[in-house]
Parts: sequence; structure tokens; C-alpha cells
Amino acid sequence: MSKIGGRLTLPTDIDMIDETLRLKELLDADALRDCDGTNMPEELLECDGKIYATYYTTRKDNEWAEKNPEEIQQEYVMSERVTAKDTALRIKPMKGFYTEQLKINLLDDPKRWWEVMDRTTGEIVPTDKWEVDAETEEVVIQSVKYHEYTVSFLAFIIWDPVHMYNFITNDWTDVPHQLTFDVRQPKTQVYVKEKLKRWCEENPKVNVVRFTTFFHQFTLTFDEQKREKYVEWFGYSASVSPYILEQFEKWAGYKFRPEFIVDQGYHNSIFRVPSKEFRDFIEFQQIEVSKLAKDLVDIVHSYGKEAMMFLGDHWIGTEPFGKYFANIGLDAVVGSVGDGVTLRMISDIKGVKYTEGRLLPYFFPDVFTEGGDPIGEAQDNWMKARRAILRSPLDRIGYGGYLSLATKWPGFIDQIQKVVGEFRQIHEEVNGTKCHTAPFKVGILNCWGNLRRWMANQVHHAIWHREIYSYVGVIECLSGMPIDVEFIDFDEVRNGIDPDIKVIINAGDAMTSWTGHENWLDETVVTKLREFVDNGGGFIGVGEPSAIQHQGKFFQLSDILGVDRELGFSLITDKYNTLDPEHFILEDIENEIDFGEGKSSIYAQGENYQVLNMDQKYCRLVTNTYGKGRSVYFAGLPYSPQNCRILLRAIYYAAGMEDEMKKYYVTNVDTEVGAFEDAGKVVVINNSKDPQKTDLYIKGELKVSLDMEPMEMRWVEI
Amino acid sequence: MSKIGGRLTLPTDIDMIDETLRLKELLDADALRDCDGTNMPEELLECDGKIYATYYTTRKDNEWAEKNPEEIQQEYVMSERVTAKDTALRIKPMKGFYTEQLKINLLDDPKRWWEVMDRTTGEIVPTDKWEVDAETEEVVIQSVKYHEYTVSFLAFIIWDPVHMYNFITNDWTDVPHQLTFDVRQPKTQVYVKEKLKRWCEENPKVNVVRFTTFFHQFTLTFDEQKREKYVEWFGYSASVSPYILEQFEKWAGYKFRPEFIVDQGYHNSIFRVPSKEFRDFIEFQQIEVSKLAKDLVDIVHSYGKEAMMFLGDHWIGTEPFGKYFANIGLDAVVGSVGDGVTLRMISDIKGVKYTEGRLLPYFFPDVFTEGGDPIGEAQDNWMKARRAILRSPLDRIGYGGYLSLATKWPGFIDQIQKVVGEFRQIHEEVNGTKCHTAPFKVGILNCWGNLRRWMANQVHHAIWHREIYSYVGVIECLSGMPIDVEFIDFDEVRNGIDPDIKVIINAGDAMTSWTGHENWLDETVVTKLREFVDNGGGFIGVGEPSAIQHQGKFFQLSDILGVDRELGFSLITDKYNTLDPEHFILEDIENEIDFGEGKSSIYAQGENYQVLNMDQKYCRLVTNTYGKGRSVYFAGLPYSPQNCRILLRAIYYAAGMEDEMKKYYVTNVDTEVGAFEDAGKVVVINNSKDPQKTDLYIKGELKVSLDMEPMEMRWVEI
Ligand SMILES: [Mg+2]
Ligand SMILES: [Mg+2]
Ligand SMILES: [Mg+2]
Repeated sequence: MSKIGGRLTLPTDIDMIDETLRLKELLDADALRDCDGTNMPEELLECDGKIYATYYTTRKDNEWAEKNPEEIQQEYVMSERVTAKDTALRIKPMKGFYTEQLKINLLDDPKRWWEVMDRTTGEIVPTDKWEVDAETEEVVIQSVKYHEYTVSFLAFIIWDPVHMYNFITNDWTDVPHQLTFDVRQPKTQVYVKEKLKRWCEENPKVNVVRFTTFFHQFTLTFDEQKREKYVEWFGYSASVSPYILEQFEKWAGYKFRPEFIVDQGYHNSIFRVPSKEFRDFIEFQQIEVSKLAKDLVDIVHSYGKEAMMFLGDHWIGTEPFGKYFANIGLDAVVGSVGDGVTLRMISDIKGVKYTEGRLLPYFFPDVFTEGGDPIGEAQDNWMKARRAILRSPLDRIGYGGYLSLATKWPGFIDQIQKVVGEFRQIHEEVNGTKCHTAPFKVGILNCWGNLRRWMANQVHHAIWHREIYSYVGVIECLSGMPIDVEFIDFDEVRNGIDPDIKVIINAGDAMTSWTGHENWLDETVVTKLREFVDNGGGFIGVGEPSAIQHQGKFFQLSDILGVDRELGFSLITDKYNTLDPEHFILEDIENEIDFGEGKSSIYAQGENYQVLNMDQKYCRLVTNTYGKGRSVYFAGLPYSPQNCRILLRAIYYAAGMEDEMKKYYVTNVDTEVGAFEDAGKVVVINNSKDPQKTDLYIKGELKVSLDMEPMEMRWVEI
Repeated sequence: MSKIGGRLTLPTDIDMIDETLRLKELLDADALRDCDGTNMPEELLECDGKIYATYYTTRKDNEWAEKNPEEIQQEYVMSERVTAKDTALRIKPMKGFYTEQLKINLLDDPKRWWEVMDRTTGEIVPTDKWEVDAETEEVVIQSVKYHEYTVSFLAFIIWDPVHMYNFITNDWTDVPHQLTFDVRQPKTQVYVKEKLKRWCEENPKVNVVRFTTFFHQFTLTFDEQKREKYVEWFGYSASVSPYILEQFEKWAGYKFRPEFIVDQGYHNSIFRVPSKEFRDFIEFQQIEVSKLAKDLVDIVHSYGKEAMMFLGDHWIGTEPFGKYFANIGLDAVVGSVGDGVTLRMISDIKGVKYTEGRLLPYFFPDVFTEGGDPIGEAQDNWMKARRAILRSPLDRIGYGGYLSLATKWPGFIDQIQKVVGEFRQIHEEVNGTKCHTAPFKVGILNCWGNLRRWMANQVHHAIWHREIYSYVGVIECLSGMPIDVEFIDFDEVRNGIDPDIKVIINAGDAMTSWTGHENWLDETVVTKLREFVDNGGGFIGVGEPSAIQHQGKFFQLSDILGVDRELGFSLITDKYNTLDPEHFILEDIENEIDFGEGKSSIYAQGENYQVLNMDQKYCRLVTNTYGKGRSVYFAGLPYSPQNCRILLRAIYYAAGMEDEMKKYYVTNVDTEVGAFEDAGKVVVINNSKDPQKTDLYIKGELKVSLDMEPMEMRWVEI
């Protein structure tokens, strides 16, 4: 256990006063917080340490919302697709949506703000070919037989989606549905600012105003049966209104179209290659959101309080890795740590004084129940978080939910104590110094670049999907690796690759924003990357890197990668791929390699490849040389300790710097090492729940053999 | 055993005279043939029965070829892709090809007949930006740095690829490489006709001239190491020459481009959606090939002999299911029977007097060897062939290879006797009547339609590939099912679907000719199909039916199919697919369903679907209703007796005619029934090597319960 305390936030509740005080003492916590569904007891306001209070700007004031219905928040939604079986067609736009969540906006002129699309041709149906029947809330379209149509329209968000989610999940009754109001609009803006001032005055004991969050909820839409219909944590669909869109038109210099938001019904999923117009809209929203958020933060500061932002819920437009975030002037960001990747999404944020991670499990009845394993979850969560903290430390950690559940679970508080102890020990040993990293940077190349740092291939972050885990593994591995990682977009390739970057990774499925789709038709992109590798750079592809069918290739960088994917067209061409697994990348690797879903039908080609792993006649791991450079192809790379090691080796190989790898190195793939040269220490962590033996190398020489306890973290002087 | 004899062709060889006569007697064969590598003994020319002689029009005459080097056959080939690392680039077109097979054509002006392509931009490099260095046989290009280039060029085929293949496979030495000459060209045409006349005169005892084949070999190209480089059984790359192409230009009315043939290096694989120009070229070649072939057939007929064509080797341009084939005036077609599909490729041919199938195994040392199982292969081949013969009979069967191998293998001749006996029995019982089929037709929809009948999803027919067996299974099932099958192309949809067709099947991978790719962007195609199903038609999709990303959908008929494929863009959309396997399609189905490679990431959507089979959260078998019509989706459908039954049920379900299915029906999925109403008989076949019990239904009523021997064929009076 460490000697220092603090850096820890605990949740509390109205009936937990004594227990809170006991735990605060035991765990040496220095902050208390209320949560959704819990309340801060008056009695605790007086204790030492900081008091956090959640603050909602857009809801919990139905009176205001009902008085100002035109300033209720709005969302662009698309009707279901309906096929015309005749030359007239009626579509009920709200069909499939939950009418207690969304209410069709008939206040603003539909002809100005809606769009009827012929989805068979992709053409807009002219406004003189459709009418709104206000009586039935239907759209009547002059249709072409057997064409499919949709109506894009505005709807008021008459029930805050997060409130609704909590209401349903917790079976609340007799709680009024919370309406949402749009702080961006003129009357509400004035009102909300005044209200915040009042609140600050009325709550002198609160030290930290924890905004949850600012103005625009991420896209969260329910269906007729009150089930989630679609949810995009990165989505801007609910950040619109005619008021905002008219401003956007002035700023952008072109006419807004609903299609920019509904995006064929994909709602600008982060997997879509973003259109220029959607990027413009994100830019515009960041400018406006950051300005208005700053006003609120200034108010908080004027009362001597800190302003903290929760990275979630109404975070839309804040974009912590965007150009405007620092302008807000926040003191802190707090977010949920689901794994190493989501930790880095918080700990890498600049422009705040400190970051705080809420560790798992959340103290909710779903985990703290028979058959649940809260201790195991806490351990797994911590092992993923710990290796990321060593590379990019959070300043604080915390927990959320019902404290009573945690205290009643035998052994759980002991586990928390271990976590908190190790967290503090890291800060103590490291003492603000930086972890040693490879003498080059790795760039993750996708359409989003740094704006969506550590968000690649994520669906509502840290949620497992069969379609993504084989790619998310790449950044989960990297989140705790001794490598400086940049997230770059295709314009950064076009404008000249940062000379610090020595290895570029492109990972994901074809057609998605993560691999880049039509960007690979741009000769500037492919020639710059060829030049980069030819001159000694490294390129790592995972899944369908550089994929778009064009001029005889599917992977446009197949010449660099040494592989392409068989789509049927070259089945007539003989492949003579044979396995040759002797390679630097596979030294130390003892177990079968896990490629996850492992993209199929990959074959090696050209004259410079080496196939390290095959599945029947297909290849799953291939290296290639190209001029002075090298590439590595993976069919997939889910997170595992072994895959971390394979990726580490692949990166050093691709960089042509194998000799540098053992500057600080541990032989057992279940262990990792971090070196803090300025602190004179290295740390070895055991990422498994078994004891592990490992040799520690420093500057290429065997320093010591270590016997590690399960999950142990061991500090060694250098 | 049947009472009738004949209908059987046996191979022979110079040293097999007595053995041939013994077997001819034992098996009651009525024809003898020579093969590649064997010779017809003089002594056998006098025996009763027909004598076949293989005849080669394009080779076995090096003297002629060497005297007329400009009339040696040519092939369009594409150089390897080379990336320019500077503003000048040298490409050696022949690199990677086997110089003893192909010789670069510098006789015809490269600037007229070659094409240098910038594969990065897809643009043609103007002829003033490159030169041929005749000395080094290189092309020197003014290049853009880091662009990829190819050279498309003509090469002479100085070693017949089939001769070369046999030469290498059989380790021949001291055999001169056979040059090829182009019968289409003027001098050679005259010469070949005269030679054929002479040959007919010199071989009065030969009854059947077995052309192997006419003029143009399918694409078969070797690499530097004498290995197969690419082989396209359907390929036209080796049917070109400036002489032919100038005629083509006149006929087509536009300038020829090498790209029409090399096709980005895909060589117009049958999996490619064929370009208009390639289709034109196929049309032109058919017209010219059929005219010239007729001349040769007329010569054969003038000597009182029959003309038979081997469906293989130089079959290019004959297209047995094309418009011009019947004009040739052939007496017969013979081809290799690898399975039910390849049998139907022969037995469905119209415009000849009879068809003959060469059954497997071929009497070659690769099978007749320790570890080989020629009897098992003969049984498996026959079980697949038999069910197809019941639907579309061959007139004759035969064998090929070294007779000595077959006679020495214990029990093999007994197995042949069984096969031959059953084959004759079918003819005897059926007596020329047609098998009962469903009261509607099924249409297989792809880009090739009837021109490539029974060739869908095939790579060099009857060769197993991991990428195709899950689709080939569809037509292999159909080849022996009591269903009339049409192969239709997208123009037939555009022009109005044949009213006899009640169910349409679209099966294959996205982007291929088998599913249709950009045809699905054509509103005419999708609206005609919607109308077809809405009015009661059925649609069956396998793999990626109607796939092309457009306007929010990947499967353009997802409204009909009730499913779409997840490409990542709709991961944010919740799916609530649940299993509901109670369905007409799955009655009688007892074992796990085999979906083969089973396309992944399929989800059901809409309001009218039923999910019959799932793999975790993905769907593999889904039905849907659309207006008065129905659809069925399969993730894949490899051939198996059980999958035949599932497909049969799916077809009757899609047609909305479940009640008709049991007109003739057997309950055990390992058995099938064929009804010959005009002959007053049904036949039940056991498609397994185990005994099977099965109930036979006639007109919906249980007629009899049958105990079937392994592989038995049982005839029952009705
Ligand atoms: Mg939340
Ligand atoms: Mg280990
Ligand atoms: Mg052959």
C-alpha cells in the first residue's frame, strides 16, 4: 500500500451517511459525489474533502419547457422506408418511433425543414410533389410505383432520453417525464444562465459542479415498444433546430439539407465516411457549444467553484480532442473507464487541470447480484486500466452507483482498496515523470483522426460487438503499450506525414471511416504512403486496410501489404502461399494466435512477402518489404496479452528497429514493463490472474528473473 | 440389370486389344475411343460398334506453324503491376510469364495493339509517353512517381497450353512442344480444311470425329516456373489476333481496347460483371466460330461420318447455350461429368442429336494408386450424376484414360457394370418420357443468364473452392430436383419476367456477376422484381443477393428478403432478431443445417420476417412476406441431400404452393423421387451409402413404405 492518500471520489446517498464516512476514512477518499438516482446528504456537506454535484442544464424543469414549447430540443429523424405500390403513397413519419419520446414538429414549416427522398433513385422528391396531412400526421407523396420513399423530419424531444432510459430501467412510476430544452436558443439561454447563478448561490458547500453535460444529448432514440431503436454515442442528430440550422447556413454559406443528418438512415454512424457537410456541421457545433459552455463555466468560476464535465450524455459538440475544447476553460473531465481505450479517451485530454476516471463495476444491482462477479469485474477492469494509466495517467479515480451494494458484498471493498493503493503507488513512484516509449510514433490512420482519438472502431464505447472486437483490440493493445500513438486523418497524409511517425496503422472493415473507403482512390494518398514506406516507413494493416475495389485491386496498398482479398475475380489466378513462421514477430509467442473474427479470403502476392500464419489456404499474418520499408498484415487482432506482444513486435519490425525493442523488455507475454527513467524505476505488471515467471531485460541485458504474483505490479530500481 | 445394351463408350489402347474386346462384350459397349496419350489399335477398327477418333484442329503440325509464324495463335496478357519510383519506368512485359509458352508479339505494331495503363488513376498512358525497347523487350514509360503501371500486350502461344500441361504432368521428354495455329486466319483456314478432308479420306473406319475442340483454347497461362499462373475455363483471352480484332472493330463499330480482354488483370473472370465490350466480343466470336466450325462439320458429314464436339479445351466461342451453336450442325457433344451440375451442362444442350457424358474417375494413375479410392469415386460421381440424369438424361455415357488401370483394380469393373446397368435401366423404364416437375419454373438470376447455363459460381467447373461451394450447392441441388430451371439475366428482368417463372434465385457474393452488382442500382430491375413478388412471386437469396451499397441498404431487395447485411454502418441500430424455427421449410429436417461458409453479419429487419436459423446474433435462414409474395434467405447452401430437401421446400414455400409438393414425395431426406407419369412409374433413389427407410407419397397419400439398400434405385408402378 502506498503512503499517499486522496485522488479518490466515492458516491454516497441520503441513507448512507455513517457508511460513507467509514469508507471515506478507510479508503482515504478526498471527494464525495451524488449520482443519478442518489442524493447528497446535508450532513456530509460539512466533511473535509470536495463535494461534487451533478448538474443538468437541459432538463429537470418541465415548467420552463412547457411554457416554451418552441425551444424544446429537436432531433432529425427519418421515417421508415415505404415502398409505393401505386402512384400515391402515404407515409406516417412517426411510425416506429415512441410518441412519448418524440413529437413530430409541425410548428416549423415542413417544406422548409423536411425532405422526402426517393431511396430507389437517391433523388429528392420536389416539395410540390408531397403534402403534409396535419390531421393524420402523414405525408402524401406523388410516387413512382415500387420506388421506396422516406421522410426526413424534425421531432421535438419531449422526454429526455437518458431520463427515459433510467425511468424504464429502474421501473420508475409516478415520476413526470422530463422534457428537454435547448440552451442554445435565446430565451432558454438567458434563463439557464440565471438559473445556474441562483443554484451556485444556493449551494455554497458544493466545490465541483459536474456538468452532465452541456447542451446536446448524443443520439438515443426509442421505438414504439419503448426499446432502444438506435443509439450513437458520437451522434449529432439531436443537436438541431431551425434556429441553429439557420445560423449554420450563414456560417457554411450553403443550404442545409436534412440528409446531412439522417444520412440515408445511418444517422452519421461514426463508421460512415463523414460527408463534408457533416464535418462542417460538427465544426460549427464545436464553435458554438464551446462558446456557450464557456459562459456557464465562467459563472461557476465566479462562485469559486470548479467546473467538471462528464464525458457522456450531453457531450455532443464539446469534442475533447477538437480545436475548441480548451476554450471552454473547464477544470476537469470525468468519464467512465470500460477498458484501456476508454481510459485513454479521458486521460489523454488536454486543456483541463485534471482528469478523473470512473472505474467499473458501477454499483448497480445488475452486477451486485447472485451470479454476478463484481470482484472479478473490478480486477479485469483494473488490469486493463492499470497498463493504460502507466502510459497516460489519470489524475483521479472514482466509483459510482449505490454505495450500499458495494459495502454489503464480501471482499469487494478489499479489492477496491487494492486498486486504490496501486493507483496511488503509481503516482508516488512515477512522480509526474513520463514513461519511456519507443523512439518513434505510431499513427492510426482513419477518416476521423485525432478528433476521435481512441474512439476507432467503437460502438457506444467499451461495448463488445462481434463485428468490432477484432479491430478494437488494436487500440486496446496500444492503450497500454510503450508507444506514443497519434490518430491521423487522410488530410494529414495528403499534407505530409508527421516525420515523428514511423509506423502507420490502418485497421477496420472495408467501406468504413476506419479504413477510409474512397480516400484510397485519391492518388495523393496512395503515392504519399508509398513514398513513406519506400523511404523506410512501416505500414500495418488489419482486416481490410486500404480497401476499395479499383483497377484490379481491392487493397489499394496491396503492393505495400503483400496481400489482397479474394472477391471472386481472381479465383482463376493460382496462389502459391506457403507458411513460413520463423520471424522476429513470433519470437516468445507460444500459444495459437487469436485473430478474432479474422477477415477471410486473404492471399499473399508479389515477390517480397512472408506468410507467418494461415487458415487453410488463406493468410492471416503476413509481412512484406517495400523499398526500404516494411509492412505487416493481420486478419484481425482482438485484445489479449499475447496479441499486445505480437503487435509490439510487429511495430518494431515495421519500423525496422528490432534492436531497440529490448531496451526495456520482459520475456513472458503475460507481463509488461514500463520504464520511468527520470524516476529511476521500471515497473513490471502481471496482466493475468495466474502467477508468472518473467525475465526482465534492461538495455538489452538480462537484469533479473521475477516471480510475479497474480495481477502483481512490481517496481524495480534501475 | 437391364435388358438393353449399348449407350456406352470405352477407351482403349494399342496394347489392350484382347482386354478391350472382353470388356466391350462384358459391358455391352457400342463405341470405342482413343484418348490423349493412347492410340486406337488397327485391329479394333474392324469390331462392331462405332469408332471415335479425337481430332485437333490447331496443333500437331509444327511444320505448318513454323512456316506461318504470323498465324500462330495469340493471347492478350497484362504485365505485372510495377510502381514507378521515378519519372521514368521500365517494364518487362514478359516478366512472370513462361517464355517457352508465350512469346511477345513485336510483329504487330505495339502502338496499335498494346496499352500502357496508369493503374493508380485508371487512365491510359498516351502512346507518345512510352516506347518499346525491342532489344530488351521492355517498355519505357514517362511515369508519375509512385503510380502503378501495367502493359497490356499480345503474345504468341508458342506451346499449346494443354499439350504443355500433359507434357509436364506426365514428365514427357523428347517430345517437341506443339505450336498452335489460328484456324480463323486465311492461310491456315484453307490448310486446315484441306487437311481434314485428307484425314477423313485416310481414316474410313472412323465413325465419329471427336473435335478437341475447334479453334480457341480457354485461357490457360503459365508462370516463369512452368506452374499454372491463371486458368479461366470460360476465358476468351487466347482467342485474339490483330486479324480477328480488325474484323471485330468493323462489326462492333468502335475501336478495340486491350482492356476489354485483360480487364484490369482479371482476364474477364466469369465472376466479373461482364462489360458491354466483352459481351460484344463474345457475341462476335460466337458468330465467327460457329460459321467456321460448320464448315468443318460439313466436311466430316460429306464423308459419312459424325461430328462430335468435346466441351472443353478449344471450346471458346462455341457457347453451347448461345444463339449460334445449333448452326454448327454437330451430331453430338461429349463432356466430363464431375457432378450433377456439369452433367446438366451437357445433357441440357439443344441442337445436337445426342449427348455423351464421360463419368469419373478418369482412368489415370492419380486415382488408381495406393490410397486412391476409384470405386468410392465412381459411386459418389454416379449418385450425383444419377439424380441429374433422371431430370435431364444424357444419351450416352463413357469413360476415359488407361483401360489397363481399370481392369487391374479389384472390383472396379463390377462397379462400372452397376452404373452402366442403372443408366440403361433409366432409359428403358423412362422410355423417352419426361420426369414430372413442379407446376412452375425457377429462374436463376445472374449477369450471364442462359448463355452460361449451369455454370454459375463455378471456377473451372467441378473444382471445389472454399469461396464457392456454398453457392454451387444451389445449382448442384437443383440439377437433380423435380424443378424446371431457367437461367435468366438482368435484361430478361428488365424486359418482363417469363410468366412461367414463379420463383427467382439470386445467389453469390457481392460485386460478382452472380449477384449482379450495379444492376441493382437500376430502378427497372428492382421495381420489376418488387412487382413480381408483390403479385405472388417468390424470391430466394443466398449469400449476398441484390448486394450493392446504395441509399441506406446493402441488399437492394432487403424489403423483399427481410434481411440485410451489417457493414458497420448500422451497428448503432438495435436488432431484435429471435429464433422461430417452426416452419414448413424445416419439416422433415432432422440434422443441423449446413450453411457452408455461411455469409456472416446478416440481420433480419422489417415487419414480416421469420428467423428460422441463427448463429449467435446473426441470421442464416430467414423467410419474409412481401405483398402476395414470399422470400427465403440462406447464408449459404452447399450441396447435401438434406440441403436438397430444404431447398425444395423453400422453393415450394416461396412459390406459395406448399400443397403441390407432396404430389410425389419421399419423407427421408436421403432419398428422392422422380415420377414418370407417361411411363406409369415412379423411381426412388437412395442418395446415401447407408440403408434408408422412406415413405413414398403419391398425390398426397402414403403409397408405400420402402426399405432401400445403400445407393439403391427402385422403380414403382403407379
Ligand atoms: Mg450514462
Ligand atoms: Mg506465458
Ligand atoms: Mg482436359
